[in-house]
Amino acid sequence: MVIKVHGIPLSTCTARVLLCLCEKGLQYELVPVDPFGQIAALEDGDVKIFESRAICKYLARKYNETRITIDLLGSNGSGVSPIQSSNQALIRQMIVNPIYGIAPDEKIIEIELHNLAKVLDVYEERLSEYKYLGGDFYSMADLHHIPDLVYFMRSSKSSIVTSRPCVNAWWNDISSRPASVKVVELMKL
Amino acid sequence: MVIKVHGIPLSTCTARVLLCLCEKGLQYELVPVDPFGQIAALEDGDVKIFESRAICKYLARKYNETRITIDLLGSNGSGVSPIQSSNQALIRQMIVNPIYGIAPDEKIIEIELHNLAKVLDVYEERLSEYKYLGGDFYSMADLHHIPDLVYFMRSSKSSIVTSRPCVNAWWNDISSRPASVKVVELMKL
Repeated sequence: MVIKVHGIPLSTCTARVLLCLCEKGLQYELVPVDPFGQIAALEDGDVKIFESRAICKYLARKYNETRITIDLLGSNGSGVSPIQSSNQALIRQMIVNPIYGIAPDEKIIEIELHNLAKVLDVYEERLSEYKYLGGDFYSMADLHHIPDLVYFMRSSKSSIVTSRPCVNAWWNDISSRPASVKVVELMKL
Repeated sequence: MVIKVHGIPLSTCTARVLLCLCEKGLQYELVPVDPFGQIAALEDGDVKIFESRAICKYLARKYNETRITIDLLGSNGSGVSPIQSSNQALIRQMIVNPIYGIAPDEKIIEIELHNLAKVLDVYEERLSEYKYLGGDFYSMADLHHIPDLVYFMRSSKSSIVTSRPCVNAWWNDISSRPASVKVVELMKL
């Protein structure tokens, strides 16, 4: 069984382990850590929270009365994005792997694009009746889609969104909000 | 007290949290995660180990009889590098912060360079008597210095090493080992 190293060669810690393996003449497989999927941590005074959904929930509850213009929890406040696992797989194949010189797996891309298309058909129907996924106001259900879709829309497969009129209008709406524009600006290499 | 977010804006998880904060109109401070200091994880069959020094120790012990050409544990096998905390601080100021558009703190750089110089004076004396830090053979004590020094030697402050003849000869020796050349090649953006 081959030894697996999970890390980034740019990391001094990973490099130290690779040096040791090379000095020993041991075979290893480098499993690249996905910098796009790194966890986030929040420190709010004495409160420390990990995991982006838990953080968003905390922020939406704690700061419910201060400068709130929209109910970010909304009616569909679970924040679970049904397309996220497909998006993450597509991002890894199309963006992360090429950074590490690994060829994208076209079979995985095909399967995940198919899964994504089925979910977007459901979204298309819902968004023909309501302006947002949670109903008539912007909510966590919409917000949670933005980061993955930012990368996805920069790829060659963006027509899966643009070809669906209601999904496309929704994406143009949520991605042009001032908060979205500000954060998307930071999401550049 | 300002809210602190530990993360990378490129990460979809971090971006999700920033979106939430911006939508709420909340002030925050982004504390960039250092991709050069990321932890490494090793999977060797059923064994899973985190933290690079623990991994190196495990590898040196387990693979002690297979294709071993040097005793990587050596007499000074603790693997603790006295200059590592200075190096890490210097790398953060000189390499990581500029990536995030943060100005290097010249005061911290000055203090850490001073600390580093003092340690290197001790190394210079030791390396005038012995070929390596642990004695007459290459050991973990040497190996653990390589990843930090790779970045440091690429910076404008490399003369702190090159100006000390024995330290410089030691660096040229350990960085030109086949394993070192192979791994350093991977440590490029």
